Amino acid sequence: MLFNKVSIIGFGLIGSSLACCIRLHNLAKEIVAVDCDRTVCEKALELGLADSAMVDLRNGVEDSDLVILAVPVGACGAVAETIRYSLKEGAIVTDVGSVKSAVVEAVQPHIPAHAHFIPAHPIAGTENSGPEAGFAELFDGRWCIITPLPETDIQAVEKITKLWEACGSTIEIMDVKRHDLILAITSHLPHLIAYTIVGTATDLEDDTMDDVIKFSASGFRDFTRIAASDPVMWRDVFLNNKEAVLEILQRFNEDITGLQKAIRKGDGDYLESAFTRTRDVRRQVIDAGQGG
Amino acid sequence: MLFNKVSIIGFGLIGSSLACCIRLHNLAKEIVAVDCDRTVCEKALELGLADSAMVDLRNGVEDSDLVILAVPVGACGAVAETIRYSLKEGAIVTDVGSVKSAVVEAVQPHIPAHAHFIPAHPIAGTENSGPEAGFAELFDGRWCIITPLPETDIQAVEKITKLWEACGSTIEIMDVKRHDLILAITSHLPHLIAYTIVGTATDLEDDTMDDVIKFSASGFRDFTRIAASDPVMWRDVFLNNKEAVLEILQRFNEDITGLQKAIRKGDGDYLESAFTRTRDVRRQVIDAGQGG
Repeated sequence: MLFNKVSIIGFGLIGSSLACCIRLHNLAKEIVAVDCDRTVCEKALELGLADSAMVDLRNGVEDSDLVILAVPVGACGAVAETIRYSLKEGAIVTDVGSVKSAVVEAVQPHIPAHAHFIPAHPIAGTENSGPEAGFAELFDGRWCIITPLPETDIQAVEKITKLWEACGSTIEIMDVKRHDLILAITSHLPHLIAYTIVGTATDLEDDTMDDVIKFSASGFRDFTRIAASDPVMWRDVFLNNKEAVLEILQRFNEDITGLQKAIRKGDGDYLESAFTRTRDVRRQVIDAGQGG
Repeated sequence: MLFNKVSIIGFGLIGSSLACCIRLHNLAKEIVAVDCDRTVCEKALELGLADSAMVDLRNGVEDSDLVILAVPVGACGAVAETIRYSLKEGAIVTDVGSVKSAVVEAVQPHIPAHAHFIPAHPIAGTENSGPEAGFAELFDGRWCIITPLPETDIQAVEKITKLWEACGSTIEIMDVKRHDLILAITSHLPHLIAYTIVGTATDLEDDTMDDVIKFSASGFRDFTRIAASDPVMWRDVFLNNKEAVLEILQRFNEDITGLQKAIRKGDGDYLESAFTRTRDVRRQVIDAGQGG
């Protein structure tokens, strides 16, 4: 057994999926669900995903070997501050956030010397939220990026590695800053774009929107799936990875302005060459086993 | 049997898939593949998708009851001009283009009085191109939009309707202008955005791009699939639906500027409310049976 007692704070899609995995693979003796929403706590018990459930953070982490912060990234700092005096000797605190620099800055100062903080980010998710959205296969075959700090205890890193490997994930160790840049490109900008394009469509007249829904299979529908992701989680991602997101968004804006001009001027050569060079990326994605 | 002889001009993904359907459902006695690329003609015969294949357009349409223009939309006008004197009495000419106004303008003047032009657009496709990419199920359960002109022969419209229904499609009759607006939103803008974001990423340093590919499952990969679509086909779409695309792109730009400002200012309320209103669109897409 990897852990004696595990506390999962925030019992949404990721938290409940982790509970499913821990149960399925027998990774802990006891699971505590901690969520500020009492109905979520009740649901966690009802689904049999936790041995106990509570809204109180301090009680929730008592005696736990592992405390998983599965709340929106903007909430991690306040949670860490609240639980700091309740963490037991040798406790490992980890998170699952899509942003690492801001989380490390917010959480690390509150981690007592007798505990360890291991920042982690499973590259997995669906557009569904809440405790009922969780399932044990969510992390299977997916990457989990761990961004240990220079001073991090190596044995604690190993335990978190084992946890994610048991969930079926492959581990990548990465620098905090680099994580935030890569994710800004692969995840944060795509989500921002998808939210924008679906938002632009919802401003159309009702009957136009009806036809947009009806014929959405021609491209639009792929964006609606992404734009259905949890609003609070994503609000926090953008607020907490501001710098990297704004930088990559700036580049995107320059590129779309170039294409816009080419369309306006009827510059077919520009368009064709722009559309040709992106083709090869798909092949690379498939070759990397990420074709989905 | 719906048709005696069918000529398919342009034997790419759509053309070859149509040939598969016509064979499978026994919709014509004879299929002629017409393509300016001799190797494509040979491939069509090798795959058994045509009874004859030729590069010459005029010979290719001789004695055909149905002539399908399955070339990039920018080529439709020139093809129609070339075949105009070779069309038999009562021949139906149809197309499969993603743009309708420009195609009607380019093709209709060349259609002789003894023939009929029925513009059509199957809402179906994959990111693969060429005669080997075709398959009979491509149109199954998908929409096919027909945009008949006011003067169009009703029996010819019925024959094209039967053709697409036999391929498994559901028919929607729509006005040419409206088609181009709806598709600009559901298909053309999403493709432009996907081409842009994948292009932006390819400008990054090599080692950054390697990680982008590796972790592309977090959102980026959905865009790479769309951005792998045929460059010439899409060049022609943007050149020929300029007005509608630029109008919707303008709205998109305004919306993304609003989000960019909110991120810069740290306006969480703005972001959360923007991300909340798009969530419902996904439910509407699923309710409309377009969830994919």
